[in-house]
Amino acid sequence: MSIPSHLKLKVPDTEYPRIIIIGGGFGGLKLAKALKKLRAQVVMLDRNNFHTFQPLLYQVATAGLEPDSIAGPLRKSFEGHFNYIFRMVKVTGVDFEKKEVQTRIGNLSYDYLVIASGSVTNYFGQDDLQKKVLPLKRVVHALDLRSHILQTFEQAELTEDKDKLDKMMNFTVVGGGPTGVEVSGALAELRNHILPSDYPDLDFSRMQINLVEGSDRLLNGMSEKSGKEALRALEKIGVNVKLNAMVKSFEDGVVQLNDGQLESDSVIWAAGVKGNIIDGLPAESVMKGRILVDEYNQVKGHDYVFAVGDVAMMETKDFPNGHPMMAPVAMQQGEHLAGNLKRLFSDKPLKPFKYLDKGSMATIGRNKAVVDMPGGLHFKGFFAWLIWMFIHILYLIGFRNKLITLNNWIWSYFTYDKGTRLIIRTFTAEQRRKASRDE
Amino acid sequence: MSIPSHLKLKVPDTEYPRIIIIGGGFGGLKLAKALKKLRAQVVMLDRNNFHTFQPLLYQVATAGLEPDSIAGPLRKSFEGHFNYIFRMVKVTGVDFEKKEVQTRIGNLSYDYLVIASGSVTNYFGQDDLQKKVLPLKRVVHALDLRSHILQTFEQAELTEDKDKLDKMMNFTVVGGGPTGVEVSGALAELRNHILPSDYPDLDFSRMQINLVEGSDRLLNGMSEKSGKEALRALEKIGVNVKLNAMVKSFEDGVVQLNDGQLESDSVIWAAGVKGNIIDGLPAESVMKGRILVDEYNQVKGHDYVFAVGDVAMMETKDFPNGHPMMAPVAMQQGEHLAGNLKRLFSDKPLKPFKYLDKGSMATIGRNKAVVDMPGGLHFKGFFAWLIWMFIHILYLIGFRNKLITLNNWIWSYFTYDKGTRLIIRTFTAEQRRKASRDE
Repeated sequence: MSIPSHLKLKVPDTEYPRIIIIGGGFGGLKLAKALKKLRAQVVMLDRNNFHTFQPLLYQVATAGLEPDSIAGPLRKSFEGHFNYIFRMVKVTGVDFEKKEVQTRIGNLSYDYLVIASGSVTNYFGQDDLQKKVLPLKRVVHALDLRSHILQTFEQAELTEDKDKLDKMMNFTVVGGGPTGVEVSGALAELRNHILPSDYPDLDFSRMQINLVEGSDRLLNGMSEKSGKEALRALEKIGVNVKLNAMVKSFEDGVVQLNDGQLESDSVIWAAGVKGNIIDGLPAESVMKGRILVDEYNQVKGHDYVFAVGDVAMMETKDFPNGHPMMAPVAMQQGEHLAGNLKRLFSDKPLKPFKYLDKGSMATIGRNKAVVDMPGGLHFKGFFAWLIWMFIHILYLIGFRNKLITLNNWIWSYFTYDKGTRLIIRTFTAEQRRKASRDE
Repeated sequence: MSIPSHLKLKVPDTEYPRIIIIGGGFGGLKLAKALKKLRAQVVMLDRNNFHTFQPLLYQVATAGLEPDSIAGPLRKSFEGHFNYIFRMVKVTGVDFEKKEVQTRIGNLSYDYLVIASGSVTNYFGQDDLQKKVLPLKRVVHALDLRSHILQTFEQAELTEDKDKLDKMMNFTVVGGGPTGVEVSGALAELRNHILPSDYPDLDFSRMQINLVEGSDRLLNGMSEKSGKEALRALEKIGVNVKLNAMVKSFEDGVVQLNDGQLESDSVIWAAGVKGNIIDGLPAESVMKGRILVDEYNQVKGHDYVFAVGDVAMMETKDFPNGHPMMAPVAMQQGEHLAGNLKRLFSDKPLKPFKYLDKGSMATIGRNKAVVDMPGGLHFKGFFAWLIWMFIHILYLIGFRNKLITLNNWIWSYFTYDKGTRLIIRTFTAEQRRKASRDE
C-alpha cells in the first residue's frame, strides 16, 4: 500500500512527518487522540474498523450486551482531527531498515512508528488445545461464544442420551483472572436466573460451571482479600472452583486435570495473553513474547520506533518483570508517548514513563464486585459493584454507548433478564474451531 | 426427532392434542400467543431462536440498529405459557399421510399443523443474478449487507483506479416497494450525512444511489399519492430513480437494464418475495408459489392442516389474487386461526377470515414518510414520519427493544449519526455470495 496518489489526504501539508500507529486499542487510541494538534500525519492501521472495550467482552459473550455497546468505530472517534488518517489493513511485518510497514496490500513508509498491537490469547504452546477451546479476546470470539452457549441448550433439548447431555450442559472456564472470574460468574447467573425459564425441559440443577486456575488463588493481580472474596462469591452462586489445577488435555468432552477430570464439552480459554509481536523484530528486541522498550517506550536499538501497552515490555524498578498487561497501563503509556513525541518534535528532552496505579477491580455475577484501590483500600459486595459500574460506564468511549449500556444494565438488573439471546450465526463444531484459530 | 422420552415436557397432560406451528414470524407468533390457555401441546419449530421484525431489517443493514433491537428470542416471548414448546430445527418437509413433520434430525407427529413459514427472496428464476446480488430478508443478510457497505468504503480508500472507484462506490437497489424505498433512502442519508466525515479522502459527490423499479411508479401496494411523494422525496435526497426498468444482467460491475446501464459493484435485491413452500405438498395445493387455503386458512384437501401469512394464498372477493404478503395480514390470520382452533376444540363452527386494512406506510430517509389510512386518508412528510415511528415502536415485540430502539432513533435524529458502524465479520466476495445463497 501507498496512500493513493489521486486521493488528496486531508492533511494541510504532506511534508509533515508521518507517524504510523499499529493498532487502535487502548494504547493507540489514547496516543492518536493526544496528538490532535501535532503537525504530523497520524496514520492508524487496524484490521478492524472499531476499537474494542475488552473488559466488557464477556458481557457480549453471555448475552448481556450487543457489540455496539462495547465497540466504537475508529473513524468516528477522530472526527475533527485534521491530521488523522485511518486505514483498515492487517499489518504483516515491519522493515526497520527501509522504515516501512508491510501490509497485505503493500508497504507504507514511516518517519515514526508506534507498535500498539496489543495481545493475543496465550495457549502456552498447547496447539492441540487451541483447536478445541473457545477464546474470548475479540468481538467475533464473543459473538461466537454467545451463539455456542445458546446453541448448546437448543441441542440439549433434542438429546436423549443422559451422559451426552451432562457433558453438553457443563461449562469449564480455564483461568482465574478477571476474565475467567467474570465469565464464570455470568454463566452462573444465566443458569440461575435465565436458562431454566427459556429451557423448561432441561434440568439445570445438573449443570456444572467449573473454573480452573493453576495457582492457589483467584485474581492473582489483585489483593489476597479480593481473591478470597471472589472465591467465596463464586462458590455461593454455584461455580465449582478448582485451584492448583492445570489442564493436561481435552478430548471427547473430558477435561483431564493434573488431579482428576471434568466432564464438559465446552471449554472457555481465559488462561492468559501474550504480546501480539510484529514480524521483522530482531531477537534481542523481544523478551518473554513482548517488545523490549526503555522508559520512554522506545524500542531498544530503534530510534524512531516505539511500543506501548500489552505488547511493550518496560522493565523498571517497580516492575522488574515488565508492566501488567492491562488497559490502564496501555492508556497511560499512549498518553505519555504523545507528550514525548511532541517534545521530540520541538527538540525538548523526553520524560520517562511512570505508571500511576488507580486500582483494579473485577465483578462477580449480578451485583457483587471486588475493588482494590491504591494504598491498600479494598471494597467488596454491592458497593464495589456500584463502583465497578460507574467506572466502566465512565470509560466506555462514546456517549451513545454509555446510554445504551446503562439502559441494558438497569433493565437486566431489575428484570434478571438478558436481552440479546439471539443465535445470529449457527456454527458447526468444525466452523467454530476454525473461527477460534483466527486470532 | 421425537420429543425425547426422558425429558418431561412441562405440559400437564401429554395426551393433549399436538399443534405444530412451522415458523415464528408474525403469523406463527400471534397464533401461538393467542393459544395461551388452550389444552394442547403448542410446538413451534423455527430454524432461528428469534422472531425477526422484518420491517426494520433495513436499519440493521444501514448501521442504524443492532439486531437485538429488531429481533426477540422466541423462548422468552412465551414465558408463562404452560403449553408452549419451542425447538430450533429446520423443517425439511411434511408427510401428510403419516401426519409427520420432517426435520433434519428426525420426524415429529402432529394432530394439527399450521404452516407459517413466511416467504423468501424472489429472484424470478434468475439464478445467475442470485449469486451476485445482496438479499435483505433475514438478520444475517442485514448484518452481511452492513459489513459489505462499510468494507466497500474501506476498500475504496485503498483504490487508485478511478473507474474501479466509481463502480465500487455506486449502489443499486432493485425493487421500488417499501424495502427498496427505505433502503435507498437510508443509503442516501449515509452518503449525505455520515460517510463524508468517516472517509474524508473519498469524493462522495460522485457516489450514485440507483433505485430500479419495473413498473411506472414506486410503492405499488400504496396510493398513487404516496408513490409520487416517495419519488419526489427520494430524488430530493439524491437517489437516482429508474422507473419502467428491468435488470437484464449484472456482470463485472455493470447492471444492464432494458434501456441503458448502470455502473455499480453492489446490487441490493428487494424486488420481491415468494412463499416459503414446504416440500411434500401436492401440486393442486400450490398456486403462484403459495399454499392454497380456504377462508378458514385450511389447506385445501387437508382437514388438519392450516397455513397463515405470506405462504398462504387465500382468494376472496376483495382479494381475488390472494392477500398481500405483509405483516398485518399474517398477524391477523394468526390471531384469527387461534380463534378457529379453539372453536374446533369445542366443536363450534369456524368463522371465515376477514382482513381489516389498518393502512400502510413507508419511510424515506431521515424524517419523511408516507402513510395511507383506510378511507383514502393520506399523510406525508414529517408528521407521517412521526406516525411511522410511533407505530413501529408500538409493534416491536419486547419492551426492552422498544426502549433501545427509541434511544437509538432519538440519538441519530439529533446527531445525524449512526452508531453501529462496525465491520464485525469481514467477507470476501466469494463468502458473501455463499452467504446470500443460504436462504
